[in-house]
Amino acid sequence: MGQRPLILVTNDDGITAPGIKHLIRSVKDFGDLLIVAPDKPQSGMGHAITVNIPLYLNTSDYYPGHEAYSCSGTPVDCVKLAMHILKGRKPDLVVSGINHGSNASTNVLYSGTMSAAVEGCLDGIPSIGFSLLDFSHEANFEGAVVAVKTIVKNALEKKIPNDVCLNVNIPKVPAKELMGYRVCRQARAFWADGFEERETPFGRKYYWLTGEFENYDTEEDTDIWALRNNYVSVVPTQFDMTSHQTISEIKNWEI
Amino acid sequence: MGQRPLILVTNDDGITAPGIKHLIRSVKDFGDLLIVAPDKPQSGMGHAITVNIPLYLNTSDYYPGHEAYSCSGTPVDCVKLAMHILKGRKPDLVVSGINHGSNASTNVLYSGTMSAAVEGCLDGIPSIGFSLLDFSHEANFEGAVVAVKTIVKNALEKKIPNDVCLNVNIPKVPAKELMGYRVCRQARAFWADGFEERETPFGRKYYWLTGEFENYDTEEDTDIWALRNNYVSVVPTQFDMTSHQTISEIKNWEI
Repeated sequence: MGQRPLILVTNDDGITAPGIKHLIRSVKDFGDLLIVAPDKPQSGMGHAITVNIPLYLNTSDYYPGHEAYSCSGTPVDCVKLAMHILKGRKPDLVVSGINHGSNASTNVLYSGTMSAAVEGCLDGIPSIGFSLLDFSHEANFEGAVVAVKTIVKNALEKKIPNDVCLNVNIPKVPAKELMGYRVCRQARAFWADGFEERETPFGRKYYWLTGEFENYDTEEDTDIWALRNNYVSVVPTQFDMTSHQTISEIKNWEI
Repeated sequence: MGQRPLILVTNDDGITAPGIKHLIRSVKDFGDLLIVAPDKPQSGMGHAITVNIPLYLNTSDYYPGHEAYSCSGTPVDCVKLAMHILKGRKPDLVVSGINHGSNASTNVLYSGTMSAAVEGCLDGIPSIGFSLLDFSHEANFEGAVVAVKTIVKNALEKKIPNDVCLNVNIPKVPAKELMGYRVCRQARAFWADGFEERETPFGRKYYWLTGEFENYDTEEDTDIWALRNNYVSVVPTQFDMTSHQTISEIKNWEI
């Protein structure tokens, strides 16, 4: 009782990324921190876990005054190893990010940042992923810091519903231009993929995944709409992927 | 018109795994096949994509009579590269598997097999992931082959609903003991993770993720119930992760 909340901090851009530094700065006054983050960039790792190679975990002195570890694995590995370090004590909150780049709409599926939050949610812990719509290493995180503090304060006081985590995206605008918060749904938008074909110096062909994100879902209740209108988007995100409303349709199959 | 369906075949256990051989055997009479599968095991890769290292794609002569490629990336990379190979033509069906091991319940999140199916679904293609509840390289796939043929026949004739793919799991019993099919929901069950700590020959500590899958959701409308009672489980699976029913609750926050 009276104990400060324990907050697990992770990300997918790696333990030294600017985004996680700003996340730590944003949440450190809310509780005691346990930082477990990848030792290298792990963008686009989705909900991957490491099963075929050993996992390494090293203490890190990168954040003096905080217990911190770097991990050779994925963001989801980081959450799982954090639980192992804690030997049964559960964090009061998992925060992941601040990601460099959008995790709105269907990007949630590819996002290591959000998969770490979903993993926290699977463990029954209130969990939030934060992403700023700016890929730059020199991005301005001031608006994001305001958003993190506001959302974390509410999450600790009001509680996130069970079996749900939050996907919070922050538009790339100065803090004073933020219009507020929109609790909304994941837009039905998709990547139109491309591949750039190149040749190694040794004549072997290889590919880089490229592409454009396309949105045909312009409804005002979507995260994409919110972000385009300078709102912070907050999407309650669940790990139940069942399409409950189509079960009865498929029951009509002759199987 | 009159053209045979084009079926994209992939998996996460790698292009030479027994499971994909049995999948190819099961679906080859339904259409022309394009096989694009990982060049090595990619279990537990979830919806990971390769963004920081080059992707390689090689033609494979492992399946004579079929167009086949092995890919250095993840199952989702395989689906994306297949679309690149097809230059705009869309497959009529994506099938992924047959995975060696269960992808029922929340395993869907970690599963490369199912993520490939979800990726096909994001592309607007009817997509199905198949998994057999047997990790053994020598597993008996006869029941799984029956299930694949039945489900694929129905998927081609009856159509899978839009924005939905199927997560099909087959119990580890002889074909004649299969009780039939249950269209059901993803059980609310979780991994109780453990880590086995070891030391390298050089004295460095490393970890293997272990654990037990725990189910407290014993309802008869779940995939776990179906599988325990020797039914093939069929879970319609969506890429919308929004928790629509909690949006209004979070709108009450002071943000």
